[in-house]
Amino acid sequence: MAPAYKLTYFDGRGLAETSRFIMKYGGIDFEDCRIKREDWPQIKSKYPFGQLPVLEHNGKTVNQSHSIARYLAKQVKLAGNDDWENLEIDAIVDTFNDLRLKIVAYFYEQDEEKKKTILENLNKDVFPQYLTRFEEIVKKNKGYFALGRLTWADFCWATVSPGFDMITKVDTIANYPELKAVRDKVNSLPAIKKWIEQRPKTDF
Amino acid sequence: MAPAYKLTYFDGRGLAETSRFIMKYGGIDFEDCRIKREDWPQIKSKYPFGQLPVLEHNGKTVNQSHSIARYLAKQVKLAGNDDWENLEIDAIVDTFNDLRLKIVAYFYEQDEEKKKTILENLNKDVFPQYLTRFEEIVKKNKGYFALGRLTWADFCWATVSPGFDMITKVDTIANYPELKAVRDKVNSLPAIKKWIEQRPKTDF
Repeated sequence: MAPAYKLTYFDGRGLAETSRFIMKYGGIDFEDCRIKREDWPQIKSKYPFGQLPVLEHNGKTVNQSHSIARYLAKQVKLAGNDDWENLEIDAIVDTFNDLRLKIVAYFYEQDEEKKKTILENLNKDVFPQYLTRFEEIVKKNKGYFALGRLTWADFCWATVSPGFDMITKVDTIANYPELKAVRDKVNSLPAIKKWIEQRPKTDF
Repeated sequence: MAPAYKLTYFDGRGLAETSRFIMKYGGIDFEDCRIKREDWPQIKSKYPFGQLPVLEHNGKTVNQSHSIARYLAKQVKLAGNDDWENLEIDAIVDTFNDLRLKIVAYFYEQDEEKKKTILENLNKDVFPQYLTRFEEIVKKNKGYFALGRLTWADFCWATVSPGFDMITKVDTIANYPELKAVRDKVNSLPAIKKWIEQRPKTDF
């Protein structure tokens, strides 16, 4: 029987890896569909808003990586136990995304002079502001980002934050042991460890 | 007795109005706290990540406007009935936000020449791409953005999309009757109509 879920993305970790981690962790069988960059222009219009990743399930197709990850997290008990707990998780995940968007802006800036200025600002202000607070939050939550236990916020951090380093070529979490520990903790979960060994080797 | 919820934002609609609409619709009593711009620098550091809006409830304070709106929507039955339904709502709300961020980029661009190019691109490509699809989605959902019934996605559209017009000085939905109808439908709900009459008059 075909898996109940199909996750479609490019052949990379990018915005799909959080959902892949969540499904691997929870033992959800899924089709890991990877579209070649050269094929994308021809098929892009078939997808909602021409975006990837998308999740297909029961004949329906939905876009938006965070929405998909949130849904999957609920299926495998990586979500909150009530609405307020889910709010606490959602708020931290949206805050990761605020930081991610600042790094994406650096990535896409074409003007070399401006790029330099953005990177200086990231290192001087943005990273310290966000990462110091993240570090405090994880300390307060006994080694996790929310609720004092493992949630999909930790999965999001473990899969998204390595991209920060890759794009900026800065070891962003060098001085933040708690933030490094979250990455390591997620990556050491048996199902995740196995997936990291098995997954296609890609640049990003 | 003090209201169970306190929503703090600047004295404007901005990123707080979706949550205000949701609480007014559902009859949730809340303190509508509005911070003066000139007071903000002194108190900013007291708020999570120095951001507004925040929601305070039971001694806890949480940032992130969409996370807050999603939580409140669940309290007043403007959310889905199961996880997949919530995914469908979340995906469309995140897609509004993708569009919003492109308009925010226009707003903050300082270079006049670049600003002109961004606006041309918005009008020529971005708006048609997004709004045509939104229009189809609303048509398919019997006049709503998701699930064929009123959800917080409609509240989000009614409160966020007027800002698109204000920033770009374009009547973005002139040719999209379904999208206009969603705004009108939400604004005509008795509790919302009353709130629009009563709320502080602000520029944005």
